[in-house]
Amino acid sequence: METMDHSTPQCGSASADDLLLIEAVNEGDVDRVQQLLEQGADANVCEESGGWTPLHNAVQSGRVDIVNLLLRYGADPHRRKKNGATPFIIAGICGDVSLLQIFLSRGANIDERDMHGFTAFMEAAEYGNVEALKFLFAKGADVNLRRETTEDKTRLKQGGATALMSAAEKGHPEVVRILLDEMKAEADARDNMGRNALIRSLLKLDCENHVEEITSVLIQYGADINVRGEGGKTPLISAVERKHTGLVQMLLSQKGIKVNDRDSEDKTALRIAVELKLREIVQLLLEKGADTKCGNLVWIAKSKYDHGLEKLLRSYEANHDTNPPAKDWLPHSACWGEALKRLHSMSRPMIGKLKIFMNDYYKIASTSEGGIYLGIYDNREVAVKVFCENSSRGRKEVSCLRDCGDHSNLLTFYGSEEHRGIWYVCVSLCEWTLEEFPNVPREEPMEKGEDKFALSVLLSIFKGVQKLHMHGYSHQNLQPPNILIDSEKAVRLADFDESIRWTEESQTVQRDLEDLGRLVLYVVNKGEIPFETLKGQNDEELLTIAPNEETKDLVHCLFSPGENVKNRLMDLLGHPFFWTWESRYRMLRDVGNESDIKVRNNKSKLLKLLQPQTHEPSRSFDQWTSKINKRVMSDMNGFYKHRKGYRDTVGDLLKFIRNIGEHINEEKNRQMKEILGDPSRYFQETFPDLVIYIYKKLKETEFRKHFPQPPPSLSVPEAAGPGGVQG
Amino acid sequence: METMDHSTPQCGSASADDLLLIEAVNEGDVDRVQQLLEQGADANVCEESGGWTPLHNAVQSGRVDIVNLLLRYGADPHRRKKNGATPFIIAGICGDVSLLQIFLSRGANIDERDMHGFTAFMEAAEYGNVEALKFLFAKGADVNLRRETTEDKTRLKQGGATALMSAAEKGHPEVVRILLDEMKAEADARDNMGRNALIRSLLKLDCENHVEEITSVLIQYGADINVRGEGGKTPLISAVERKHTGLVQMLLSQKGIKVNDRDSEDKTALRIAVELKLREIVQLLLEKGADTKCGNLVWIAKSKYDHGLEKLLRSYEANHDTNPPAKDWLPHSACWGEALKRLHSMSRPMIGKLKIFMNDYYKIASTSEGGIYLGIYDNREVAVKVFCENSSRGRKEVSCLRDCGDHSNLLTFYGSEEHRGIWYVCVSLCEWTLEEFPNVPREEPMEKGEDKFALSVLLSIFKGVQKLHMHGYSHQNLQPPNILIDSEKAVRLADFDESIRWTEESQTVQRDLEDLGRLVLYVVNKGEIPFETLKGQNDEELLTIAPNEETKDLVHCLFSPGENVKNRLMDLLGHPFFWTWESRYRMLRDVGNESDIKVRNNKSKLLKLLQPQTHEPSRSFDQWTSKINKRVMSDMNGFYKHRKGYRDTVGDLLKFIRNIGEHINEEKNRQMKEILGDPSRYFQETFPDLVIYIYKKLKETEFRKHFPQPPPSLSVPEAAGPGGVQG
Repeated sequence: METMDHSTPQCGSASADDLLLIEAVNEGDVDRVQQLLEQGADANVCEESGGWTPLHNAVQSGRVDIVNLLLRYGADPHRRKKNGATPFIIAGICGDVSLLQIFLSRGANIDERDMHGFTAFMEAAEYGNVEALKFLFAKGADVNLRRETTEDKTRLKQGGATALMSAAEKGHPEVVRILLDEMKAEADARDNMGRNALIRSLLKLDCENHVEEITSVLIQYGADINVRGEGGKTPLISAVERKHTGLVQMLLSQKGIKVNDRDSEDKTALRIAVELKLREIVQLLLEKGADTKCGNLVWIAKSKYDHGLEKLLRSYEANHDTNPPAKDWLPHSACWGEALKRLHSMSRPMIGKLKIFMNDYYKIASTSEGGIYLGIYDNREVAVKVFCENSSRGRKEVSCLRDCGDHSNLLTFYGSEEHRGIWYVCVSLCEWTLEEFPNVPREEPMEKGEDKFALSVLLSIFKGVQKLHMHGYSHQNLQPPNILIDSEKAVRLADFDESIRWTEESQTVQRDLEDLGRLVLYVVNKGEIPFETLKGQNDEELLTIAPNEETKDLVHCLFSPGENVKNRLMDLLGHPFFWTWESRYRMLRDVGNESDIKVRNNKSKLLKLLQPQTHEPSRSFDQWTSKINKRVMSDMNGFYKHRKGYRDTVGDLLKFIRNIGEHINEEKNRQMKEILGDPSRYFQETFPDLVIYIYKKLKETEFRKHFPQPPPSLSVPEAAGPGGVQG
Repeated sequence: METMDHSTPQCGSASADDLLLIEAVNEGDVDRVQQLLEQGADANVCEESGGWTPLHNAVQSGRVDIVNLLLRYGADPHRRKKNGATPFIIAGICGDVSLLQIFLSRGANIDERDMHGFTAFMEAAEYGNVEALKFLFAKGADVNLRRETTEDKTRLKQGGATALMSAAEKGHPEVVRILLDEMKAEADARDNMGRNALIRSLLKLDCENHVEEITSVLIQYGADINVRGEGGKTPLISAVERKHTGLVQMLLSQKGIKVNDRDSEDKTALRIAVELKLREIVQLLLEKGADTKCGNLVWIAKSKYDHGLEKLLRSYEANHDTNPPAKDWLPHSACWGEALKRLHSMSRPMIGKLKIFMNDYYKIASTSEGGIYLGIYDNREVAVKVFCENSSRGRKEVSCLRDCGDHSNLLTFYGSEEHRGIWYVCVSLCEWTLEEFPNVPREEPMEKGEDKFALSVLLSIFKGVQKLHMHGYSHQNLQPPNILIDSEKAVRLADFDESIRWTEESQTVQRDLEDLGRLVLYVVNKGEIPFETLKGQNDEELLTIAPNEETKDLVHCLFSPGENVKNRLMDLLGHPFFWTWESRYRMLRDVGNESDIKVRNNKSKLLKLLQPQTHEPSRSFDQWTSKINKRVMSDMNGFYKHRKGYRDTVGDLLKFIRNIGEHINEEKNRQMKEILGDPSRYFQETFPDLVIYIYKKLKETEFRKHFPQPPPSLSVPEAAGPGGVQG
């Protein structure tokens, strides 16, 4: 890529009289024009859109009188519109010879061109203005000039068309004839895409434009009848697609016609005629000897219940099992692979870019409106959620998908199609719902009793929901069937058709947070308590289900989020629930290594913070020294020969944990290690409410520096926001 | 969502004779059919595709003789195809009264229906079989029966059509007349979408099907002429869209016609007629008093250079500045917002779902083929990369985008359009290239001398490239202009049009790794050395540019990746380059806390690993005790009163770092802390090659447990892979 300057199209500012002048010219009111010009209105004022000046407008409406008036008052005869057209070129469009004459006499170049390479002569051909064409020819216009466009467009093979192509494409048989006969235009000239006038005359889908007559003249003058157009289509194929029997007949009667040429989809004219059930054209092609080996034509006719056509094709032995070899299209999905392959190889009418078959075999799930089906959209496997045309659910789904854009924890929105009152919304295809996903920890013991699976799933869900809230949406229907897992095993939120876009902070966020609380309980309990059951319980009942203190506190925070619910999730992503046991242990050790704790500086801020308040409920670590293994406790106290040993304070417990952490792996402490096992686990299990206690005491203080830090952010720091250099 | 069972459509296995029977029926060879049946071929064999039995085929081809033969040999007259159609219903399609008679006499129900609710009577209407229709009516078929389809489709408002609608839609005026006149069909019956036969007769875009005649009969019998179809279109609007002047005229002559009804895009019949430049129809509508307040109709005509139409509209004062109020469409992009808003409000022909104006003002960048432009695709802002129709670069771009799918560090592929030989590839729109992005650290001092910005950007790039390699692609053109930053400040790789898909490990991966090496140097040097300059330097020169040992080693690994280049990037994501200073320091402390180091167990595996080999180059920490601040060194040695102090070994250095880490924050060490400052920085700066030395010595050993651990993976553990429960 190479970045560009943006030159804003800009016209000078216009006075009130200038604007009235524009209006008067458009109305064709010559007296008013004169009056305004006399009052000093600017004859060269230009309209914002398109850059039209009064002169361009007067020429377009063919008003010689107004043109002359404007020129007298200083209108610039060479002035270009934004697309580069001069008044002379526009005169070619309107076809008025006297106007062409005026501008030629004012110095117009006979072959001057606009930004797309159009000359006045080409415009005259394009608009079928015979008189103007002849006049310009007499004045020396270059008949075979080819449109020269911008460098970019030339790279794209745009441009290069001649006046003959314009006339042919726009359906002016008389102009075509004059160009070829009187002006010796090259009949088979090619544009930059290699197309001649013949194939260009078939560009439009509706054939109202004398296409048969024009084709006949072009062929007569030597245009190549087997030329290729877009999609590799020949004139014959194009004629079939337009169901134009006469044209097909005429083309087939030409010497050298290649009846079996295939387009870039590998289809012949015959195949297309069969698909369109054009029995008469099929007959013509077969009589001309068209090859029947292009798919199983008999089967195509039969599947369209056209028995006559089927019979005709059978008589030409067109019952081949020669389906074009399936290109090696391999779906990514393991779960849906078979059905997708079947759908891919199936013959189905396309709905825009979508191939779908709304049949139970291809159905992923039911919904309140119309179900979710497998689909192939723009050649990619997708899940297609179907809605009625104006469905408000559908609008919510698409609005949310569009606005929240790409996020690795939300479904990706690929696009949508509307057809016959049905709205097809295509999103990324996933493999499982959270309910179905094989729940690893169920079978294998959790690593050290720690449920990293739950942690990872919930972290993804929280991030997805947080993204929605950041964009001002709430989901409103968070439940296990709407949490999907894709083929790369990423967790992705789905089903936004009940989502709500709020303008101010709202209760709808609260609803999401409560559902998240239930999802936390669902996941940590390995799906063993059905979500519906959780839905039926009140907050207090639910809290009793939490298997540990971290979960309980997280769920409590979700149920009672307090103020500023909008940003609540961002905070909660740093909650100890999401810390590994190892990092919880590390946090305890690091706090325990604080100097004030080591020296028992009871006046220190830290120790005051950690002090339990009166009336606080009892904690597992209240008499902690009595809960540590006696042998270990005694050994550890032994290190304090001339001082008293550990006391029953939180500070001393942290110091104890710090000292264990530093020294447990030393050879002399081998026995102690054997007793305790993995210390991160030992402390977690012995004092299950310790981490959350420390977290709550310190989270609003400087000591949160000891909490696990998020990994270096992948996104660039906020300070580097917009407003800097632009492309 | 609610998941579904997949019932695979399946026919029984067929013998060789069975297959021959199918073929013989299809060929209409009655003798051969007889012979095969006598040999024991199964009269009820069914074809895999569609589930056709010989009986269905014989009915479809109207062969009464074969039908009777098959029935004699036990063919089941009630057998259904996969779509639920019975031979009786198919007889309605082929229209043969004697066949209908046969199946009625064999117990067919006169109103039996297939899965889509079609009865034989409806099929007769659909296929214009007058005789069959009359016969079935005489036998008591329900004329006004409405198609009953599946529950899912009913939810989508599909179904509910009557025989009259079928006949009208398929263009059978005689059938329409008979149904209304002789059979008293309800003229204004509605399907489940609320459409009557009148609007359904306008469903198809080509109006070859006697639509005028049918419309006239339906109106005569009382069908509502202002009924709405898909997109809220009335018959009048549909007639205009089909450019059907006669039909428009006829509709306008009806009493009660609502000429100003708007479709769901808020367009009137007049507006559409102007857009299509249908001067005659515009005239008819204006004469009927159509409201001109629907956009600036004059301006639309003018922009299409149709002066005649413009003049006509001016005479009806249709020059209103009443562009429909721009819906509040707000682009996400800050950089491109203005241009996007302008594009959105502009009148442009759509290319499929894409709105684009290939003009410099909307250009994002140049490319070798055709540039990148702003676009609005399916209502979302996008970057559009344009290619020629069959461009091999375009194919590479799309193939790579499709296969590598959604990854937060790659551009998202939204879809593509082809039109007139140009291929428009729509991807996510970003704000800056890496070259343009405001480089924060340039202005502000880096945090503690650490360049977290570079780390974050490079981590994203590495992850993106790693994703490509994982999917078997190499990028082949990694350079700063192809590294984009989106509006959420995420780094995303772009430009895959030179990407290569390899089947085996290949040199192309090596090329990517080398380019990554240069990108590392580009980013860590804050873009101050142009990428082109880096391209011109050889590996050794480049290594001298690396500002620190971690960078040097990372670049070296990229230039000399050794074996298994494919997975090299995965390993390198764990390289110390990507560790924060804090986590490097933590690693040194943790290794230093190993028991063997504390007690100088020189026989230990760890100390042996850390021992420099003979012939290794000198290191900054070779005589490390002499490089530590003397006062600090002396204080630290002072703690070893009765033993010798620290020695010049790597082990002792790590122990020293560990002891500093544990004790520096204690009150008694305040002076030491003042001297050293932040220890993580002190050690990084005093021994810049220490971390990488330890990393290389330990990375293949158990001691890598002390390296920073990746955060809990968001994706579900690998063990939980496919093969589990399916939907």
